[in-house]
Amino acid sequence: MSQSGRGRLIALEGIDGCGKSTQARRLAEALGAELTHEPGATELGRALRGLLLDPAAGAPVPRAEALLMAADRAQHVAEVVAPALAAGRWVVTDRFTGSTLAYQGWGRALPITPLRSVADWAVDGLAPDLSILVDVPLDVARQRLSSTAPDRLERLGADFHERVRLGFVTLAQDDPTRWAVVDGTPRPEVVADAIAEVVADRLGEPA
Amino acid sequence: MSQSGRGRLIALEGIDGCGKSTQARRLAEALGAELTHEPGATELGRALRGLLLDPAAGAPVPRAEALLMAADRAQHVAEVVAPALAAGRWVVTDRFTGSTLAYQGWGRALPITPLRSVADWAVDGLAPDLSILVDVPLDVARQRLSSTAPDRLERLGADFHERVRLGFVTLAQDDPTRWAVVDGTPRPEVVADAIAEVVADRLGEPA
Repeated sequence: MSQSGRGRLIALEGIDGCGKSTQARRLAEALGAELTHEPGATELGRALRGLLLDPAAGAPVPRAEALLMAADRAQHVAEVVAPALAAGRWVVTDRFTGSTLAYQGWGRALPITPLRSVADWAVDGLAPDLSILVDVPLDVARQRLSSTAPDRLERLGADFHERVRLGFVTLAQDDPTRWAVVDGTPRPEVVADAIAEVVADRLGEPA
Repeated sequence: MSQSGRGRLIALEGIDGCGKSTQARRLAEALGAELTHEPGATELGRALRGLLLDPAAGAPVPRAEALLMAADRAQHVAEVVAPALAAGRWVVTDRFTGSTLAYQGWGRALPITPLRSVADWAVDGLAPDLSILVDVPLDVARQRLSSTAPDRLERLGADFHERVRLGFVTLAQDDPTRWAVVDGTPRPEVVADAIAEVVADRLGEPA
């Protein structure tokens, strides 16, 4: 299934506390892929991440929040993702466009279709070859997060995070060839095996 | 011509050094209007302005630059412009969507139609009742700017600023009911009179 000359882009998606950051690290290691994340993988992105997630900063309105996430992604693609793919490398990213649709679309109640147009424009249409939703119920995610200080988005209420989870599930259901859902509740080793299996099944192995 | 219950939005547009900031101040005073500007009229916007214009910051790629300008504008509209208009006030802004189209479209060579869609989405379709291009040749603008330290966009070469000027002229020509062009080369009093005349002619007087 591998196209010669271009790597593959795999995005791990899900609500905070679902375990996707741990799983992204494991998957990148298993594949020998480049590991990256959003927001904040570039110098510009780190500044934007501060503006977006610091509970002390003035809160951006939903459209501004979506545009800042899209700006972070535009820079991330230009500096990190596109050069790696062009060099034939596989890239595993902790969050990508799916997170903008789930958080700012479902979570912030911005209409999805125009939001998707803006998000797609930011990256000139680049879409992951596979987005993997690491799905967990909200109470499981909350327990895992309880030991760390919450950022501005994490502080939003359970209703918000339930809408975001529903957004991810809907995205995956609506585009089953580009999305997969993995149960994130078992032990990390079990989740990692399930992710490795779905990647091998859908994308094969890196050349 | 005045619609009851909603103020009017007037944008002054043009290349750096054209005199629009001086003219925006004079016009707002003459109309008793709220004076504002982009980028940087909100707390979020001031942080973004630093990222966008500081020559020492890592340079955003063109799409990221456009998205950050659009994010600044989304916040500006939500916090400043829309509340003033809703209260029946007139608003004079030093730059608005026209600047994104001219600088990031013509200047950075991003295709105009999708860029306009993104810029319009940022403000949920809010357009100025009148955009006034204060037009000056590049050498005139450069002379006026020579005494101040240039920001990152001002440091770009003459070719860039010629494309931006052409962008503004094209925007005005393509939408003559919503744009007016005023010659910015005479003394400020003469330019101010020309602007006052075009505003009275197109929009009448504040109630």
